Amino acid sequence: MKTPIDFFFDFSSPYSYIASEWVEALAARHGRTVRWQAILLGVTFQAAGLKSPVAYPIKREYTLRDVRRSARFEGLPYTQPDELPIPTLNAARVFWWLHDSQGPSQATAWARAGLRAYFTRGVMLSQPEPLKALAASSGLDAQQAEAAWGDPLWKARLKRANDEALAAGVFGAPFFVVDGEPFWGNDRKAQIERWLAQGPF
Amino acid sequence: MKTPIDFFFDFSSPYSYIASEWVEALAARHGRTVRWQAILLGVTFQAAGLKSPVAYPIKREYTLRDVRRSARFEGLPYTQPDELPIPTLNAARVFWWLHDSQGPSQATAWARAGLRAYFTRGVMLSQPEPLKALAASSGLDAQQAEAAWGDPLWKARLKRANDEALAAGVFGAPFFVVDGEPFWGNDRKAQIERWLAQGPF
Repeated sequence: MKTPIDFFFDFSSPYSYIASEWVEALAARHGRTVRWQAILLGVTFQAAGLKSPVAYPIKREYTLRDVRRSARFEGLPYTQPDELPIPTLNAARVFWWLHDSQGPSQATAWARAGLRAYFTRGVMLSQPEPLKALAASSGLDAQQAEAAWGDPLWKARLKRANDEALAAGVFGAPFFVVDGEPFWGNDRKAQIERWLAQGPF
Repeated sequence: MKTPIDFFFDFSSPYSYIASEWVEALAARHGRTVRWQAILLGVTFQAAGLKSPVAYPIKREYTLRDVRRSARFEGLPYTQPDELPIPTLNAARVFWWLHDSQGPSQATAWARAGLRAYFTRGVMLSQPEPLKALAASSGLDAQQAEAAWGDPLWKARLKRANDEALAAGVFGAPFFVVDGEPFWGNDRKAQIERWLAQGPF
């Protein structure tokens, strides 16, 4: 039995959005499944003493250009959100609420919906009303979603996910762990594919 | 007439070493030439407010692992130097001395020799004696090389190269500019190849 691919992402990470669109197909081609894990990049940056690439003016300009090009490279739609990054605590808590109460596939569907909403339509996941509307259009009960993101239980669950990510060595997103091997970044797709096809290299 | 590919590198950058081994073949496949440009990463980091990835303990561990894996991915020999990074001022000044007095291809040959010496045999380019020995084994006059790296003329030439890199938006290495389009990192190889094959995407 092949082990699943751990896929750590943040709802506000454009390279996570791009990777989220290829990771399932890549895994399936090699008989693997994917364990999606919503985390907060800010927590991992702080733990590692890092900042977002878009926090440095010169790097920000390049990064936003590279994100658009990297999306086109994968044939994906992408629209630069007006604000980037945004706080994604609530979207991530809804993810873990769904994960633990309804199952991983429901959580994954929410992750896709959230990433696509923010990175193709500019839906502000940081604001309660757009987030509730997104929950409703995703087939969830918007009131339950709102209750979940305010619930200490799911706040603690997200904190645990962040702690587990830090323990696994995660310091950025997207971050993949395959058979214990860490891969950081959307741009490690080709290396992950070789690993899945041939094993360690 | 197709424009050359600008390739900015630092003698102490492992991803620059990896890219230096594929950039000429990639360019040749698409009828391009390469303009090698030795720069000091420290200068670009300082200008952009950045630090090396190996300056952050958690990221350093991953990065050194990723460098080894990325070299294997390209089928290249790589041995982790005992000290990384090292000051590469003198090696870079020799590069510009050769570039301006003997021509770009002599400078490129020196760049290859220096990158391979440091990243496959641990030759400390930061120290005068190993650097002179490398110059001699590369067919240069070691005394002339030493005189060049101490000459205000070649110090100023390297400074100009750094200034030009900053003006071109360079904030890391390897850094490529193709038809005005910036690409940062060894991991942008596939995007550069698509650009060369198809034009802007």
